[in-house]
This record gives sequence, C-alpha cells and structure tokens, in this order.
Amino acid sequence: MTNTISGITIAVDCMGGDHCVSVTVPASLQFLSANPQARIVWVGLQEILHPYVQALPSSLQARVDIVYAQEVVAMDESPSAALKNRKQSSMRLAIEAVKNNQAQAVVSSGNTGALMAIARFVLRTIDGIERPAIATVMPSIKPQGTYMLDLGANVDSSAEHLLQFALMGSALVSAIECVERPSIGLLNIGEELIKGNEVVKQAAELMRQAHEDKLINFYGNVEGDDIFKATTDVVVCDGFVGNVALKTSEGLAQFVSHSLKAAFKQNLWSRLAGLIAMPVLKRFKQSMDHRRYNGACLLGLNGIVFKSHGSADTYAFQCALQRAYEAASHGLIERLKQSMPKAPATVSLVNSQEAGQ
Amino acid sequence: MTNTISGITIAVDCMGGDHCVSVTVPASLQFLSANPQARIVWVGLQEILHPYVQALPSSLQARVDIVYAQEVVAMDESPSAALKNRKQSSMRLAIEAVKNNQAQAVVSSGNTGALMAIARFVLRTIDGIERPAIATVMPSIKPQGTYMLDLGANVDSSAEHLLQFALMGSALVSAIECVERPSIGLLNIGEELIKGNEVVKQAAELMRQAHEDKLINFYGNVEGDDIFKATTDVVVCDGFVGNVALKTSEGLAQFVSHSLKAAFKQNLWSRLAGLIAMPVLKRFKQSMDHRRYNGACLLGLNGIVFKSHGSADTYAFQCALQRAYEAASHGLIERLKQSMPKAPATVSLVNSQEAGQ
Repeated sequence: MTNTISGITIAVDCMGGDHCVSVTVPASLQFLSANPQARIVWVGLQEILHPYVQALPSSLQARVDIVYAQEVVAMDESPSAALKNRKQSSMRLAIEAVKNNQAQAVVSSGNTGALMAIARFVLRTIDGIERPAIATVMPSIKPQGTYMLDLGANVDSSAEHLLQFALMGSALVSAIECVERPSIGLLNIGEELIKGNEVVKQAAELMRQAHEDKLINFYGNVEGDDIFKATTDVVVCDGFVGNVALKTSEGLAQFVSHSLKAAFKQNLWSRLAGLIAMPVLKRFKQSMDHRRYNGACLLGLNGIVFKSHGSADTYAFQCALQRAYEAASHGLIERLKQSMPKAPATVSLVNSQEAGQ
Repeated sequence: MTNTISGITIAVDCMGGDHCVSVTVPASLQFLSANPQARIVWVGLQEILHPYVQALPSSLQARVDIVYAQEVVAMDESPSAALKNRKQSSMRLAIEAVKNNQAQAVVSSGNTGALMAIARFVLRTIDGIERPAIATVMPSIKPQGTYMLDLGANVDSSAEHLLQFALMGSALVSAIECVERPSIGLLNIGEELIKGNEVVKQAAELMRQAHEDKLINFYGNVEGDDIFKATTDVVVCDGFVGNVALKTSEGLAQFVSHSLKAAFKQNLWSRLAGLIAMPVLKRFKQSMDHRRYNGACLLGLNGIVFKSHGSADTYAFQCALQRAYEAASHGLIERLKQSMPKAPATVSLVNSQEAGQ
C-alpha cells in the first residue's frame, strides 16, 4: 500500500461498541504508532475521555485532537430516533468532523442503523448513487480477502442498484488494495447465463454493458463458494442475500471452531495431542482470524465512514482504523466520484428494458 | 427412527452421478443389509448393470428387481430436452416405478434440473402445492442437523410459496426425524419484525397465522448463523437465498479444511504434530462429514424423490437411500397431503392483503 498522502486525520467515535474507550483509545494509539503521518480526532464524553487525554504521551499530543460530546447513541436505539435526538452524540460529532474537513474518515463501533442514517443525513450521497451500501472483506485464499457488498443496507435492490454497488466496490478495492481494475463477480446461483432471478439477470446485462464501456472489469456470475476461492476481487449482491451469506459464514465458522475444540477435548489423549498441536492450531486460528477483516465501509456517501464490529477488540479496531486510513490516503471519494458520471447511460438501459417487457 | 412399515421399495437410478454403478450398486447392497425389510429396484443400462445382477448373492435376489433402461440423461442436458427426449432413460423409468407403485421412493445422483422436470411431469404436484422445493439437511449442533428449503428450485418465491415451503418442511422433518411439531424459522436478516424484504415480511404474517391455526410450529425469524445453532428444526427461504447460503457454506468448509491442512503441512514439526493429532483430526472430520447429510428431497410431488450429490461415494449414496427409506416408511406423502387442505385459508389472506394495499 504505497503513495500514502500525508496529513490524513481519522475521527474516532470513542464511545461505540461493547468495550467503548477501553478498546477505541488503545487501538487509536497503536494506529498512530504504526502510521507516523496519521492524526486522530477523539470524540467522546468528557468525563470518560478526559483521563485518557491527560495520560496522552507528549510525543502524541500534537497528533490527537479532542471533541467532547454530550451524549451517546445507544446500541438498541432506532436509526430515526438517533438521527432526530442525538445531535450532540459522539457518533454524530465524529461524522460532522468529516463533513467539516476536520477529518478525512470516521470509524465507529456503534449502532449500524444509526450510523448509516446519521452519515447519510450529514454527508449526503455522492451524485449518481441512490442508495449507500455496506461493503466488507471476507476471508479467502488471497491475503487481501474478497470484498463483498451489499451486506444489508439495502433489501429489494434493483438491477441498477446492483450496478452501482459494482462501481462502488471497484472504486473501494482500487483505493484500499491498490488494484487498478478489480474484477467484479455477480452473486448468482449458477454460472450459466440462464440461471438466477430476474433482477440478477438484468444486473448481469447492465454489468456486461458497463464492462464494454470500460467502467468495470466484470467477470460474470459467481456462486457462494467463489467468495472464499477469491475468483473475483469483489462480489456484488443484494443486501438481503449478502447479509444471509455473511451470517451463514459466521455461523459455520463458529460451528467448526466449536467442533474442533470439542474433538481436542474429548479425552486425555486428545488433550495431549491438542497441547502438542497448539502452535499449529494457533497458526490456523490466525489464518482464519476474522479480526483482520474488521471494518465495513459505508459506501456511496460524500465522506469515508467505516463501521467496526461492536465486539471488536483493540487489534480488530486498529484494523478498521487502518482500512479507513488506506481508503482516505488513496482518495476513495475522488475515485467514487470519477466512476459515477458515466453511469446514467446504463440506467437508461434498464428503463428501456422495462418498457420493452 | 421407529414404526417402520414393512415392504418399502426404493427405485435406484443406477446410472446417475460421477461414479455410476460403482457407487450406486454397492451402496444399494449395503442399504439392503442394514434394512432387512427393504427392497430395491435397480434401473440402468443392461450392458452395464447385467454383470452386477449376475453377481447378486442368492440371499438378496428376492429383494432386488431389475428394470433395464435404454438411455441415460446426461449431466449437462437441459431439463426440457431430457423431459422430451429421454423417455426410456434410467432416471425416467426409476421415477415411473414410483408412479406405478412398484416403488415408494426414487433416489438419483443425476442431473438435478432434469430430475425435477421429469419428476414434476410424471408424478405431478400435490394439490395445494404450486411449486416443488428442494430440501436438504445442513450440519448443526444437533445430531440430525437443520433442514433447509428451498435450495434453488424456485427463485422469486412469493410469501405464499414460502408458507408452502414451511408446511412441506414441517411434514418432511416429522416423517424423517419423527419430530411431531418441528419448529420452523423464516430466514431473515434480523430478528426484529421490522427487518427483511417485503416478501419475507408478508411470509412472516402468513406463518404467524398458520401457527395460530396450528398448521405449523412457527418460531419466527432466524438469521444465517441459526442454521448451525439448530435454533429451529427447519429453516425456510427463497431458493436463490437458500442456494447462496448452501454454496457459501460449502465454500467456507472447503476453505477451512484447506487452511487446516496447510497449517499442519507447514514444516517438519507441524507435520509431526499432525501425525500425533491424526485420530483427533479424523474425529473432527467425521463430525463435519457432509456425506452424512447427503440426500436432498424434491418436496411437493405425488411421490418421494431424493437427489443424491453427483459426487457421492458409496457411504454418501447409502445415506441418501436411508433418508428416502425413512421418508417412505413414515408416510411423507400422506403427511404432506394432510397438511395441505387447510392451506387455502391462508392463501386468501395473501390475496386480501394484496387487494388492500
């Protein structure tokens, strides 16, 4: 990851997530150590954040700004209530730091629905984007994993929306992973053209057109197992389908881990074998470590917004900060804007198709 | 699994799958040994099947009928071509054995699309069922796993279709697993009522109504990870979503297995640890063994049809035979028919809802 622009500042909603400042603050400090040119804005309640501010090493003081908030968005608060009532919350003020150019990206472990609603209201969507999407990285045989969107921000997506997700996913991977023409796969239930539901069939047509127009590098249809085979850099799908795929993967990973532990705990002999195999099992666990992939991007907004998992630990939160930093350093928003103006031509294709039915 | 009715016969399409008679024949023989009251109809090409017929132990001769076919449905043949042109195929004749009451169930490893098309044409759907569905078992923390449908027979399912899948899944689990009121979960992207797409929200309404009418035991919404947690006995979803969940799970399982092997092969020390841990790893592999779950049911037809995985080995194919045998022994078709007549009341609910919009 090269060509880093100096002077990138990340706004951190210090109050979000299950562990609040006990994770967000140390993760920020480790992130600053790892990225000597980066800066941080800490946003949080004064009574909670102040002790950490006072304890800040003098070497880092110039690289950390503080914004004190008056309230916190609860994890179970409805997005509309959070948008209406939490105008002085750490989440809102952290997003506003991006709006006001005080920061180039925001990272929060808070309530996803509220984050999307507030970010959408404060930052607005990029011209040409109707619906922001949530993109994340899934583990795969490639070290960088496979990017996937949408993960649940949109259900009942149209073919046109899926094309927008493809354009956004392409910009995201080119920014974060420095891949110039990331390959895009459309999630379907068969590789043959005839398969799939109506929306996916239409979306494939739009993407083929966008490929011919050199807007995206469209591979074609992919299936669920292609996510882990890294058949393409990006997998595009409706948010309902993507969320089911994500949760199913999480569930299976937990089940496998549970079964592996149970097998090694069955008797004295297997426990002994487990001790001997410990370093190997640890390496295996690391290769599967979902924390490395923490940091989902809310794509399509006029500003970079990353959502960390609510249960993220310090390492995982630092990964989300790093991902946001890469996106900001490599001009994600400019890339998104550049990829958009050419989209309307493909939108008219949908309309003419629908009219022809 | 008790109350087995004597005299159940299973028609076997001996020509299907990657391994043809080298799997279907020995699996049938093992199945007969394990089920002393069961009978088999072998359906296949004379030149290929005849040597096996001649080698049949005299003790089994009375329990195996033979039907010679003149052709085979190719794995890449289109369902419509197979339906039109393969009237003397092993697949078609095996299905016809069920139609003619020569057998109570058919098992094939052949072309899924062709099997669905031919079975639908020959057997017809049960009154009240608009679309047959494909149901399979996913591994879970419960020994019997979690039944899931639809797995790809239907895309763009309506709320009404999802209700029918729930009724059918309920009948299937009560027949195979002898669970009297299996719990039904509706696959969604959040447990809250407000989440999900329009079809799923409507389907949840219909299922709550069906629960009140004592037609099903509806648990409510479940998410992807609930499949492996065995939160419910059955998980119902549209075929597009179900197929993505299935393929994603298969892909992740392969990826995990690949990563675990790679970790144990990294150096001499890890290879040694792998040797010591071998019995434990073998037990773990067995607990994850997808072959145990082989045998997807084509549900909603006037006859029991099971699809084995094309790559099934002898053990896996025997599991599919056993599953078909349990379904036939416990009156799956009668259970399905009994659960259907009450459905029209709920269908009218959809119509009145749509009219009221």
